Amino acid sequence: MNRLTVVKIGGEVVDNPQRLTGVLAAFSFIDGHKILVHGGGKTASQLCVRLGISPQFVNGRRITDAETLTVVQMVYAGLLNKNIVGELQSMGCNALGVTGADANLILAAKREVTEIDYGFAGDIKEVNSSMLCKLLQLGVVPVFCPLTHNGGSQFLNTNADTIAARVGSALSRYFEVQVIFCFGKPGVLANERDENSVIAQITRAAYQELTQKGIIKDGMIPKLDNAFDALVDGVKKINIIHSDSLRELNQGAKIGTVITLK
Amino acid sequence: MNRLTVVKIGGEVVDNPQRLTGVLAAFSFIDGHKILVHGGGKTASQLCVRLGISPQFVNGRRITDAETLTVVQMVYAGLLNKNIVGELQSMGCNALGVTGADANLILAAKREVTEIDYGFAGDIKEVNSSMLCKLLQLGVVPVFCPLTHNGGSQFLNTNADTIAARVGSALSRYFEVQVIFCFGKPGVLANERDENSVIAQITRAAYQELTQKGIIKDGMIPKLDNAFDALVDGVKKINIIHSDSLRELNQGAKIGTVITLK
Repeated sequence: MNRLTVVKIGGEVVDNPQRLTGVLAAFSFIDGHKILVHGGGKTASQLCVRLGISPQFVNGRRITDAETLTVVQMVYAGLLNKNIVGELQSMGCNALGVTGADANLILAAKREVTEIDYGFAGDIKEVNSSMLCKLLQLGVVPVFCPLTHNGGSQFLNTNADTIAARVGSALSRYFEVQVIFCFGKPGVLANERDENSVIAQITRAAYQELTQKGIIKDGMIPKLDNAFDALVDGVKKINIIHSDSLRELNQGAKIGTVITLK
Repeated sequence: MNRLTVVKIGGEVVDNPQRLTGVLAAFSFIDGHKILVHGGGKTASQLCVRLGISPQFVNGRRITDAETLTVVQMVYAGLLNKNIVGELQSMGCNALGVTGADANLILAAKREVTEIDYGFAGDIKEVNSSMLCKLLQLGVVPVFCPLTHNGGSQFLNTNADTIAARVGSALSRYFEVQVIFCFGKPGVLANERDENSVIAQITRAAYQELTQKGIIKDGMIPKLDNAFDALVDGVKKINIIHSDSLRELNQGAKIGTVITLK
């Protein structure tokens, strides 16, 4: 089975041109098939402010009204995604920037309104793994921005971690898949104030214990939930590392946190 | 040889949601392989104004400085291109929105500064016809926005008519290509104030005569130059029609202007 590496980069990378160039260079060196998923960063909020639209967040998640979605679409799909594609192309990596609407790659449903109305936020229904597989076989490198669609011409803001995990698991029938989550810390920390407290490996049993003890909390919980879901659905290997460590990881260094079922 | 239809829609379509829906519906019904190329319209200029950037034009062509390019990239690649992709998907047409940087589809060079500095405007060097052909064979429908790249991570604003003509001619080695230019008039007019004065057919010899007499002038000249270049380079058929007439044309109506070499 051929290898496929899915790399997710977050806002702390896309907001920092120098760091972004470093990560993209490391990504461009990865052998075999690969897919990049990027988050949004602060640019959309900054543009909202310049246009007199107040960005709204609840529990760290953006509330996407129609006006905000227009800005998000311009920034994610037009500015960030294409800048990444352009830069990868300059590194000899044949990037193809996509949203979930392009080639109908990711179909989603608008999140139902419960206590909170997240607006145009999408939960993934289906990843078009056969089309993605065909694109990979052409030698192109799909680059996803965090937007999906509902098939009825509505774009939906969608969590980039979830896109990476779901794309990875959908493709695990065709490839041996590794998903690498790059973020602003050197791994999952036992003590969030100590960057030397990286937990080298987290099994599912350990995860339950660590959350019960409150050691793993807040933003790490959805990230790790995504990771375990992906492992259950067929992904072979998951790493959580600092964005600056992608090259080291690919050179075989034992860094960051490895997530395993057992 | 399989058929390929390249349709170009201009600003008067992308600025008008109702007209856009009509054209996209007609486009989605075209049999065989197809490609859509869209222009920019007024949204980028409007956003420039909201952001305090003055849009500049010389002879109807946009002067694209770095700040304007950022806005153009957001509007063309993020907003307009993705809205078109989302709407085509809702019509069952498997659209894939691209710039020239995506999958390295169109390589261009920054226009040299002569009397006028157009800024980040690009002249097409090469269309990646083999990759485009492979994408078409996957059953996807490429949708180009008017942006290309120089291979060195620089995006370049590029005329949509030229993209349509060059893409058509590059693919004429694989397909029997028809290029349809949709615009705001019912065809090339003998008298620009009389919409009933459509010239049904223009040969190359007739074109020379019509330009010498000043009947064809201004914006029609680059459009027709593009058309004749494309015919010389292998495109089989070129039509210039009103945006509202795409469905009629595809149903076999003899409307608009047909451009032929002889």
